[in-house]
Amino acid sequence: MIPKSHPRYESLMTREKIVEGVEKGITSIQGLIAQGRGEAFDYLLGEKTSKSALQAEKVSAAVLLLAKKPVISVNGNAAVLVPEELIRLSDIVNAPLEVNLFHRTQERVNKIIDHLRSLGAKRMYTKSDGLIPGLEHERAKVDIDGIFSADVVLVPLEDGDRCKALVDMGKKVIAIDLNPLSRTAQCAHVTIVDNITRAVPNVSRAAEELKNSNDNELQRLVNEFDNKKNLNGSIEEIIGHLTFIC
Amino acid sequence: MIPKSHPRYESLMTREKIVEGVEKGITSIQGLIAQGRGEAFDYLLGEKTSKSALQAEKVSAAVLLLAKKPVISVNGNAAVLVPEELIRLSDIVNAPLEVNLFHRTQERVNKIIDHLRSLGAKRMYTKSDGLIPGLEHERAKVDIDGIFSADVVLVPLEDGDRCKALVDMGKKVIAIDLNPLSRTAQCAHVTIVDNITRAVPNVSRAAEELKNSNDNELQRLVNEFDNKKNLNGSIEEIIGHLTFIC
Repeated sequence: MIPKSHPRYESLMTREKIVEGVEKGITSIQGLIAQGRGEAFDYLLGEKTSKSALQAEKVSAAVLLLAKKPVISVNGNAAVLVPEELIRLSDIVNAPLEVNLFHRTQERVNKIIDHLRSLGAKRMYTKSDGLIPGLEHERAKVDIDGIFSADVVLVPLEDGDRCKALVDMGKKVIAIDLNPLSRTAQCAHVTIVDNITRAVPNVSRAAEELKNSNDNELQRLVNEFDNKKNLNGSIEEIIGHLTFIC
Repeated sequence: MIPKSHPRYESLMTREKIVEGVEKGITSIQGLIAQGRGEAFDYLLGEKTSKSALQAEKVSAAVLLLAKKPVISVNGNAAVLVPEELIRLSDIVNAPLEVNLFHRTQERVNKIIDHLRSLGAKRMYTKSDGLIPGLEHERAKVDIDGIFSADVVLVPLEDGDRCKALVDMGKKVIAIDLNPLSRTAQCAHVTIVDNITRAVPNVSRAAEELKNSNDNELQRLVNEFDNKKNLNGSIEEIIGHLTFIC
């Protein structure tokens, strides 16, 4: 049991959730490695939402609100770290959830679907009758009515290859990735360089604030956003940290 | 199965080895998170050996060749990532291997000893009749004839506390740690900020090149080395890398 007073309580609790996820068969064992990687980048970012990330979160909300057919992709880490938060965002921006795993097994997909439903998820795409072009079979599987035909996909902690394949399909991709250098971060249209535990609630909050804006206002926010510049902002945050130490 | 065509095949295969290690009972589950943290720093270093690291690798070879009683410590991650490479280095510099685990169980120690022997390790210290002063009992266990009485210890991926305890015993400590900010990196005498998969072969190569040098030449290499400066070099490499991308 980790005491609430522990200076790294949040980070340690997040780690515990991932370990629990592995024990429940929801998170893949590789998810632990992804968690470790995230921890390192979060540490270098000072474990807080940067100005750049907050901006990306606001623009993501606008993109989701403007979308005709948005879908939120859920993987094994997201499913244990922020299930309620994803369900809430799904409701606010009217974007069904779809389970999409890098290390895919039908058993794990079903477990995650059940897990999300038990927490109140209503609108989910659960078929695997479509294939993303350019990916090896198992990793390409998606729902024809879901990610396959979506115009906007929010992908938390996505693999670089699949992010690129989604972009190549003409979709607008929003990624949540603590590594601003990753291929996913570099190839998405909007990259949120923030811990998923802070990012999803922040996008929901922004979506609620923007909900009554008209499409022109939302579109202006999106047009003014430069993902490359925003990513550079995050990289500069890390440089600032390292320079301070060196 | 990761397709060979995947652009991050090497990194993903390394990850698979750790996962396999967990499944075999050789690597601890915490080793997975450590692996992820290492991956993040490797990303930031451009996943290649920096000039600073290469220098530290050369000096490490000199330190090992000069040692009267060098020992190479092996943990659960090292045992699955670079077992053959450690055995080879052990032969070249005449430094037996000793299994030393942060999350120690005798069962896991035995598994790793068997694993290393099956791959050809001959000279190993396998007792646990000594205690490193200042550490909690289980974590303090070492072989009296091995790490306990060694003058030089190479510790790949070591815990900060234990690194400090070894230094306090008067040993010369060579650490391999991708995080130049970690306590281990900061407290070792020679810190190799490089991926263990590149570091160990590099130290072996340098040892072969230096094998015919006389002790004065080796000692000069060691004397000229400034670990703090070298670490700052690694941090600057990261900053340079980030600045280039940015």
